[in-house]
Amino acid sequence: MTGAGLGVVQGCVAARGGRIVHVGDDAGAPDAIQTLDCEGRWITPGLIDCHTHLVHAGDRAREFELRLQGASYEEIARAGGGIVSTMTAVRAASEADLVSASLPRLDALIAEGVTTVEIKSGYGLTLDDEAKMLRAARALEVARGIRVRTTFLGAHALPPEFRGDADGYIDLVAGTMIPAMVGLADAVDVFCEGIGFTPGQTERVFAAAAANGLPVKLHAEQLSNQHGAALAARHGALSADHLEHLDDAGVAAMAAAGTVAVLLPGAFYFMRETRKPPVDALRAAGVPIAIATDCNPGTSPLTSLLLTMNMGATLFRLTVEECLAGVTRHAARALGLANEIGTIEPGKACDLAIWDVESPAELVYRIGFNPLHDRVIGGR
Amino acid sequence: MTGAGLGVVQGCVAARGGRIVHVGDDAGAPDAIQTLDCEGRWITPGLIDCHTHLVHAGDRAREFELRLQGASYEEIARAGGGIVSTMTAVRAASEADLVSASLPRLDALIAEGVTTVEIKSGYGLTLDDEAKMLRAARALEVARGIRVRTTFLGAHALPPEFRGDADGYIDLVAGTMIPAMVGLADAVDVFCEGIGFTPGQTERVFAAAAANGLPVKLHAEQLSNQHGAALAARHGALSADHLEHLDDAGVAAMAAAGTVAVLLPGAFYFMRETRKPPVDALRAAGVPIAIATDCNPGTSPLTSLLLTMNMGATLFRLTVEECLAGVTRHAARALGLANEIGTIEPGKACDLAIWDVESPAELVYRIGFNPLHDRVIGGR
Ligand SMILES: [Zn+2]
Ligand SMILES: [Zn+2]
Repeated sequence: MTGAGLGVVQGCVAARGGRIVHVGDDAGAPDAIQTLDCEGRWITPGLIDCHTHLVHAGDRAREFELRLQGASYEEIARAGGGIVSTMTAVRAASEADLVSASLPRLDALIAEGVTTVEIKSGYGLTLDDEAKMLRAARALEVARGIRVRTTFLGAHALPPEFRGDADGYIDLVAGTMIPAMVGLADAVDVFCEGIGFTPGQTERVFAAAAANGLPVKLHAEQLSNQHGAALAARHGALSADHLEHLDDAGVAAMAAAGTVAVLLPGAFYFMRETRKPPVDALRAAGVPIAIATDCNPGTSPLTSLLLTMNMGATLFRLTVEECLAGVTRHAARALGLANEIGTIEPGKACDLAIWDVESPAELVYRIGFNPLHDRVIGGR
Repeated sequence: MTGAGLGVVQGCVAARGGRIVHVGDDAGAPDAIQTLDCEGRWITPGLIDCHTHLVHAGDRAREFELRLQGASYEEIARAGGGIVSTMTAVRAASEADLVSASLPRLDALIAEGVTTVEIKSGYGLTLDDEAKMLRAARALEVARGIRVRTTFLGAHALPPEFRGDADGYIDLVAGTMIPAMVGLADAVDVFCEGIGFTPGQTERVFAAAAANGLPVKLHAEQLSNQHGAALAARHGALSADHLEHLDDAGVAAMAAAGTVAVLLPGAFYFMRETRKPPVDALRAAGVPIAIATDCNPGTSPLTSLLLTMNMGATLFRLTVEECLAGVTRHAARALGLANEIGTIEPGKACDLAIWDVESPAELVYRIGFNPLHDRVIGGR
């Protein structure tokens, strides 16, 4: 399976120096030093999880348990729950602690054929703790030999030190943190929401990102319509993510700017949302749709990209092709890596997943089943 | 974790001849020939999946794909979909084919700490093909050294040969098949539904089961209220399963009879149902609640009992304790094995799952993550 429109190709894939040099007929392939016989199995591009918060410490299982017992948000906050509990755990953790806490989550993704993972900061909320999170993300890349793209999400939540002074915190994010993240972060993200940061604050962060040469993304329209997606599109954002409350103007702006819609069905499922993102409108406008785990302890403790595809289909009615493009081609684009990964084409990195399935549809259809046979990263 | 009410016990578990002989204080434990140091990890009873159709051939991924593209049920039937496609594949398969097709699904369950699995027939719909399915289930038990309980579900669907003559097919099921299943089936089940068999037909099957000394269970109140659960309770059924449309009279009848409510959130999720089983009423009446994968190709292609627990909590608002009891203590009872498995108590089989988690709540909270460290079956 390769190329545009999830075209199916029979034959072989050849790579040199980690790059694909040939796809298709065995006859046209260059002589190989090393071959891997896939015995007629299906091959897809290595899967890409383009939106995660998988570097964190602690879990929120107790909060989950209390909520099922009927506890209110206040009771949970009093019991030490909520995002502040994750922030506290992350601040207390060393970089090595963060790596060891996060490795099992990363390994769960890798075991399902994921070869590229985006990882956000956003639980440190100080310069040092945010940098520590991104260094941990880079260390994970080295530890497992996969691709990691880091995203600085200092504007994820207001830290307690800045209570009542969100603009003061945004000054710190835009003026101090972002310049310090150059080289450590591959992109900048903001949580633009009624309970997060305003569109005005988002623009200030985006301006700082642009001044420092960093592309932007946005958590937009998850719980309410802040017109964040249109704002992101105006700033040439790589993606706008969540989008349950996206309106037609937002769809049009994203289509015009080529901004990817990253849908996160795991958070929708876990939070028992009922309002779905406007899939039909996105489809009609030709907005590229990606899907991702949103792996995070509070609203999506999900570490399966295969299950994410099933949720994309079952809950959001994405087609099988859309789900597959959503974790390959369009996910690559959401990371600014459209020329690098996401399809099986000459010139791209040779990141492949090899599957024990009768048809690609099986990857989306099954629930809680992992048919990965083998994987290749950078031709190895 | 052991005993009544998911009581937590610290210390050790000792077994002799596959049976638990001591739980608790290290001091009181008998001398051991062999010890397994769990290093402070959590231990639960081996998990029990008490409702599956995991023995089958073929898959319905193509049907899933077509439905996402907007195909109608008629179009899917014309394309060879629906239960008849599974029946055709099962009839064409040998017993060995069924075993090899089903092993990956069983292995996915076992990898998550499942030590007992119920497996139904119901896709053969002839004497020979139903018997072949149950023999395959028994062969799986031997192949993997786990516990399998077999259920004869000849009254699952009307085979094409009997179109227009459901009573004629029930004659065959009750008069010929059930007597032939003695020794091969541990229980008898019926799909009692508007699109399945009537309550009257169900009673005839139950009478045959009783005459042949087999306990009964029932697929009841999934799509409509046929008063099947009350019927099942009148017949002393081990369980009534699905129950989305269960009414108060059904709840009361189940409570009085001690019939277990087996909830199947995977089918609810996959079929995008909106009506939930009456969990509050079941809870108030003290009906034991179990949960299971319902693993089947048409309505729940699910092979994760951990995910089933998360769905039970997320979709049905079961508590963490209810989810854990639902795959241990109450699942054992749904199989008539309450004295044999499902808790960690002296006298029971030593089937254990050992977990890398901070708290039991984590087993329910995480989505698509498997923290199993090790397992013990029959003390081994
Ligand atoms: Zn997020
Ligand atoms: Zn069933």
